[in-house]
Amino acid sequence: MSTNTSTSTHETTIEAPEGVPWIDLVREFDAPPEKVFRAHVDPELLARWLGPRDLEMTVEEWDARTGGRWAYTHRRGEDAFEFYGSFHEIRENERIVQTFTYAGFPDGVALEIARFEALPGGRTRLVNRSIGSSVEERDAMVASGMEHGIVEGYEKLDELLAGP
Amino acid sequence: MSTNTSTSTHETTIEAPEGVPWIDLVREFDAPPEKVFRAHVDPELLARWLGPRDLEMTVEEWDARTGGRWAYTHRRGEDAFEFYGSFHEIRENERIVQTFTYAGFPDGVALEIARFEALPGGRTRLVNRSIGSSVEERDAMVASGMEHGIVEGYEKLDELLAGP
Repeated sequence: MSTNTSTSTHETTIEAPEGVPWIDLVREFDAPPEKVFRAHVDPELLARWLGPRDLEMTVEEWDARTGGRWAYTHRRGEDAFEFYGSFHEIRENERIVQTFTYAGFPDGVALEIARFEALPGGRTRLVNRSIGSSVEERDAMVASGMEHGIVEGYEKLDELLAGP
Repeated sequence: MSTNTSTSTHETTIEAPEGVPWIDLVREFDAPPEKVFRAHVDPELLARWLGPRDLEMTVEEWDARTGGRWAYTHRRGEDAFEFYGSFHEIRENERIVQTFTYAGFPDGVALEIARFEALPGGRTRLVNRSIGSSVEERDAMVASGMEHGIVEGYEKLDELLAGP
């Protein structure tokens, strides 16, 4: 699977190659790595952009330090979707390595490695690999429609980064 | 790669299939899951068995709770090998999901999923999948000779479990 979804500004490239358990994502932003990184580690900023527009985000815990933990809930009407994990490594302005589980499928787990690369002109390329515990689990993640929420979330992040 | 290493009691099966980034390990123990699990979460017990016999083990941190962190150092003479990670999930007597990095190769990271399965006769099958962030990284881990330390560590764990 390879998807290029156009937005008003940037496309989000999502690839899930056959036979391996990961999803590779690349997305550029018109802001420097420090600012894009900050929007990932500051829970107040994070709550303003992560996930699709029709879900309400509540961050229960976001201890974005190496060895810290995190938990948030997405709500749509009566439905609540809980997620949790730990931060394996926070490398200031460069890299975030974290684990990820959707509580509704507690045996599933992914390891996510995000790199923030500086581009000319004060811009950033975000390169993220999300590795499931099996190819089947990765395929189920792709089939869940996670792509829509990711792309819409990054559109919201564009808006946030364009602000003051 | 598929290796069956005989010990006085049980073999350790280690498989690293081509084209995927994981190492699968299976090992049986003559003790119930509760006891094998305890030897993985109690740092005083852990220090008595993890790793090869010629390394001295120091546990700096072993907060074996969901969202906790861990760090230990292996020493041989003047050499020190530091490792660290976080506990994504601790499921009492059943499952441990943790991350793993050798500080000498800080960009490498593995996600480890260990299951403790009850066998008849008060015995346990430990099933562990260690997933690297790429096939190349997994291959480097295999080439590092980690197998020797794992097999010898489990021999020490056999001895510990046979004790009082």
